[in-house]
Amino acid sequence: MPIAPASRRNRASSSSVYSLVSFHVFTDTERDTLYRVIDARRDMRHFLPDNKVDEVVLQRLLQAAHSAPSVGLMQPWRFIRVCNSDLRMSIAAIVDEERVLTSRALGERDAEFMRLKVEGLRECAELLAVVLAPDDGTVFGRRTMPEEMALCSATCAIQNLWLAARAENLGMGWVSLFDPARLAKLLNCPQGAKPIALLCLGPVAEFYPRPMLEQLNWRQGKPLTVMEDGWSA
Amino acid sequence: MPIAPASRRNRASSSSVYSLVSFHVFTDTERDTLYRVIDARRDMRHFLPDNKVDEVVLQRLLQAAHSAPSVGLMQPWRFIRVCNSDLRMSIAAIVDEERVLTSRALGERDAEFMRLKVEGLRECAELLAVVLAPDDGTVFGRRTMPEEMALCSATCAIQNLWLAARAENLGMGWVSLFDPARLAKLLNCPQGAKPIALLCLGPVAEFYPRPMLEQLNWRQGKPLTVMEDGWSA
Repeated sequence: MPIAPASRRNRASSSSVYSLVSFHVFTDTERDTLYRVIDARRDMRHFLPDNKVDEVVLQRLLQAAHSAPSVGLMQPWRFIRVCNSDLRMSIAAIVDEERVLTSRALGERDAEFMRLKVEGLRECAELLAVVLAPDDGTVFGRRTMPEEMALCSATCAIQNLWLAARAENLGMGWVSLFDPARLAKLLNCPQGAKPIALLCLGPVAEFYPRPMLEQLNWRQGKPLTVMEDGWSA
Repeated sequence: MPIAPASRRNRASSSSVYSLVSFHVFTDTERDTLYRVIDARRDMRHFLPDNKVDEVVLQRLLQAAHSAPSVGLMQPWRFIRVCNSDLRMSIAAIVDEERVLTSRALGERDAEFMRLKVEGLRECAELLAVVLAPDDGTVFGRRTMPEEMALCSATCAIQNLWLAARAENLGMGWVSLFDPARLAKLLNCPQGAKPIALLCLGPVAEFYPRPMLEQLNWRQGKPLTVMEDGWSA
């Protein structure tokens, strides 16, 4: 189904000839909606306990993730839904241990770090682990950066899921505070598979108006840097 | 600005009390718009030559990228806009070389690969290089996976840009066919900085109805895999 170029945008919505086309041409209002989703997305650590994510919604989110681009169409992402509450608690324990190790590695900000809520594993409605599949040997687009490009592909899927969750008015947090080898063992992953994310997902009381780390004065984001024709200091 | 939970969604749009809130609560229609953008996004290699991306649009796209999450708020992405046409041609030459090396590495599918259009560097309206900044020592969220989590953060920015481009009815392609060290040198990157993407951006005649690699029978995508409580074969 070929689509009309952007210059035909206005005709697309008014002419029935373009009815199939208009699905693929976004209006200014629709574009602004996407920007609002991008702006409002947050890395959430506070969730409403005792909640659920509707099965239909969860499937929509996962399909959105699966619609991500991937290098050479390798689709290296695998999703493990954590349903068993004992397993969830074992995963949370691994994260707790890493939280302590991180605080020690931070040095003088250790106490400040330990006061932050850095994950919502026990309260969130759904917990998903994202695992990089064992390398399938794809060469296309990743001969020079094989591990990086598989990881980038899986990350595109996670970012799709994140934005989709926000548009469903659900919070999501990406927890990376874990030893990947230990988590892989707990999840019974085969040799070569590597967990990269624990995604906490579910209803929230509110979304942080700014990134939580900014709100709590852990760190402030910097302005966008765009350089021209080469790196400049 | 706290927002109302999702259960108040319907009230949010009808009551002026919630006027500040409604900005942050997405309707079903808005949610569907996001899913349409996600579905319609493609990795483009065919661009309309002799075109431009409006400066205001380009800034919106880059700001959308910069609104991405990052581990420990490290924001490791840097964007280099390629304006000089000689520089663009030098970059294209590096990609051409890698294309040949990839074809050799592919073995029996080399001729088939060489018939594919795998990048649009010379035709696209704008060319952006995305570079991972030298490691700033952030420990938060990346003690166990430092390189991976910086890369994941930069990738979230790229995926935001990709979706934003699609919502602007512009095509984008992520080219990873290059030797990162050679590209880093060409872009005058400092020690420790690593190019991860060449983003071709601009108007297109049409968007592929399916991923180009599927259309041309290079490879077919597989259905979504969701496992429960652990890896299953």
